[in-house]
Amino acid sequence: MAVLCRPAIQVPEYVITNEETLELAQRLHGDHPQLDLILRLIEHTGVQKRHLIQPIEKVLQHPGFDARSATYEAHTKARVPAVVRRALDYAELEPEQIDMIIYVSCTGFMMPPPTAWLIGEMNFRPETRQMPIAQLGCAAGGAAINRAHDFCTAYPDANVLVVACEFCSLCYQPTDLGVGSLLSNGLFGDGIAATVIRGNGGTGVRLERNGSYIIPSTEDWISYAVRSTGFHFQLDKRVPGTMEPLAPALQAVAEEHQWNASKMDFYIIHAGGPRILDDLSLFLDVPPEAFRFSRATLTEYGNIASAVVLDALARMFAEASALEGHRGLMAGFGPGITAEIALGTWSSEFES
Amino acid sequence: MAVLCRPAIQVPEYVITNEETLELAQRLHGDHPQLDLILRLIEHTGVQKRHLIQPIEKVLQHPGFDARSATYEAHTKARVPAVVRRALDYAELEPEQIDMIIYVSCTGFMMPPPTAWLIGEMNFRPETRQMPIAQLGCAAGGAAINRAHDFCTAYPDANVLVVACEFCSLCYQPTDLGVGSLLSNGLFGDGIAATVIRGNGGTGVRLERNGSYIIPSTEDWISYAVRSTGFHFQLDKRVPGTMEPLAPALQAVAEEHQWNASKMDFYIIHAGGPRILDDLSLFLDVPPEAFRFSRATLTEYGNIASAVVLDALARMFAEASALEGHRGLMAGFGPGITAEIALGTWSSEFES
Repeated sequence: MAVLCRPAIQVPEYVITNEETLELAQRLHGDHPQLDLILRLIEHTGVQKRHLIQPIEKVLQHPGFDARSATYEAHTKARVPAVVRRALDYAELEPEQIDMIIYVSCTGFMMPPPTAWLIGEMNFRPETRQMPIAQLGCAAGGAAINRAHDFCTAYPDANVLVVACEFCSLCYQPTDLGVGSLLSNGLFGDGIAATVIRGNGGTGVRLERNGSYIIPSTEDWISYAVRSTGFHFQLDKRVPGTMEPLAPALQAVAEEHQWNASKMDFYIIHAGGPRILDDLSLFLDVPPEAFRFSRATLTEYGNIASAVVLDALARMFAEASALEGHRGLMAGFGPGITAEIALGTWSSEFES
Repeated sequence: MAVLCRPAIQVPEYVITNEETLELAQRLHGDHPQLDLILRLIEHTGVQKRHLIQPIEKVLQHPGFDARSATYEAHTKARVPAVVRRALDYAELEPEQIDMIIYVSCTGFMMPPPTAWLIGEMNFRPETRQMPIAQLGCAAGGAAINRAHDFCTAYPDANVLVVACEFCSLCYQPTDLGVGSLLSNGLFGDGIAATVIRGNGGTGVRLERNGSYIIPSTEDWISYAVRSTGFHFQLDKRVPGTMEPLAPALQAVAEEHQWNASKMDFYIIHAGGPRILDDLSLFLDVPPEAFRFSRATLTEYGNIASAVVLDALARMFAEASALEGHRGLMAGFGPGITAEIALGTWSSEFES
C-alpha cells in the first residue's frame, strides 16, 4: 500500500509582510479606482508574510520573459536538490530506489523538464520515469499525489518522488491592474515541497482512494494568458464561490469508500484563499479548526500554489497529532475548476 | 489487459513539399555561410511534404507570442474534437466511458490544459482525470501510451484517452539561424492524433510492459529557450547519434520480458529524422523495412513530434498485417534525451 511520507519544505529567504504588501499596493496603485476594495481583499487574505526568491524590488522590475525563464531555471537548480534530498531522507530512501519523479510547477516552463537535469545531478537511475505537469496550477499538488498513488497501485513495490516547485513571484505582471491580479499579487508566495510515496513501508498517510472533479465550463475562471511578457494569471471573481459545487464532489469520493467527508480525523486542503477554507468548512460541516494546517500555510507563506497541500501535510507531521488508523481527506483545487481528492489513513510503520 | 486501439489522425489542409521547403531556404537564407549543408540536410530528411495549420506565408510572419498563443488555442478547439470523436468510435466507446485523458502537446501552452475545455465540450464525465504533459517533447507520445498502460494496470476496468496535438509550425522562429534551427524548419510538421487505451476488450496492441531511459547529462541536446518571442527549439548536432546508447535500453526492456528487441514482429518507432531510423535499424540489427510505418510518417507528414508514434501505429492498423500474437516494440524519443519504450502483443478481440 502506497504511503505518502513526510514532505520536505523550503521557502526562500526574502520575506514580505502583509503590512509591506498593503503599503506597496497603496504606493503603486494610489490612483486605482478600486484601491479600497483591493486593500480590503488583501487585508482579509489571512496572509501575514510570504517568502520570495528575490528581493521585492527585483520582483517588481519585470526584466522580460527571457530573463524570467533564466531566473526560473537558475533558482530551480540552486534550490530543488536540497529539498529532494531531505524528502528522500524522511522516506529513508536513496535516489536509486525511486521509480518515477512527478514534477509539478506552473510558474515557469522548461523543456525538457527539470527532471531531466535532476536525474543526472542526483544520481537517480536512468530508468526513472518522468511525469512533468505544468498545466494544473494549484491543483497539481493533489494531482501529483494521486498519480503517484495510481503508479504504486500498478506497481506495488514502486517508490515515487513528488516535487512541487513554485516561484509565483516570477508571474508578477506590473501592467495587470484588474482586481483579481492585484489581489493575486498580495496572495501568492514562493515555495518548494518534495515528498516520497513509498510502495512498501514508511510512516505517513496510506493512500486508499483518489478522485478528480471538474466543474464544467469554468476553464476561464482561473487561467494564464501566455504572452510575450510571460504568464499572466487571470482570476475570476466567481472562484471564491467554488466550494459549494466542489464540496459534494469531495463527499462523493468519501462515500464511494464508505467514509463520510464531514467526519474525518484530519483534513489537508489547498489554501487558495480564506474564503475557500471558510466555505469548505461550512459546506462540509466541519469546524474551522479542522483546517488549521492549511490556514497556517496561508498565514505564514501565502498561497504557494501546488506546494500548499504538501506544506499543510508537513505541518500535520510536525504536530504529531495523527494516530494509527486516523482517516483523512486531502484536496487540491485549481484551474479547470478542478479538484484532486485523496483519502488515506495514518499509518506508523515503526510505531504501530 | 490494456489494449491500445486504432489511432485517429488528422493533418491540416495546408501543404508544403520538400521542393518548396528547399526553395524557401534558398530564398530566405541565400547568404547563409552554411547554406549548402542546410540544403543537403533538408534534402536528406526523407520528408516529401508536410501539413500546416496555416498557409506558409502566415507561418513565416511570426505575429508575436500573444497571437501565437491565441492561434494555438483556436486551432486546438477547432480541430481536436473531431479526432477525439473518431478515436472513440474506433475504440467503440462513448465519452462517459473514459476515466482519464492524457493530453500531450509541446508546441503551445494553455493553463488550464485543453482537457478542461474538452471535458465540457464533448461531455466527458466531470470525474475524468486530466494528465496534461507539455514538457516531454517528441517522447510524450510514448510517455502517454505508457502512463495510460500504468493507469489501466492500477484500474483494470479503466479506459484512457490519449491526445497528441502538435502545431510545430507555431514554433517557427525567423531569427534563429543556426544549422539545427534551419534543419528543424524543414523537418517538423503539424498533426493531431488520438487513441484510446481500453482496459477491457478492443482490437490492437495489448500493452504488456513499459520502460523509460534517459541518457544522463544530455538535457541541453534538445531543448526550448522560453523567450518573449515564444518557444525556441534548440537542436544539438549530437542528437542524430543517440540511437547507439538508446538501442541497448530498448533491448534491456525487451530482455526483462524475455523478448528479443531484434526479433519483433512489428516496430513503432519515433521518426525524429532519417538517421534515427537508419541507426536504430543498424544497432538493433533489424531490416529497414521493419520501420516502414515510421518512415511513411516522416515522408508524408515530417516529424509531427509526439504524434509520430500514433501515426505510425495507425499505418500499421491500415496495412492490417499484424496477426494475433504478433509481438511489437514501440519507442518514443525526445528531449532529455529520453526514450519511452513499450512492449505489446497484437490482439484481435473480434477475430481471435
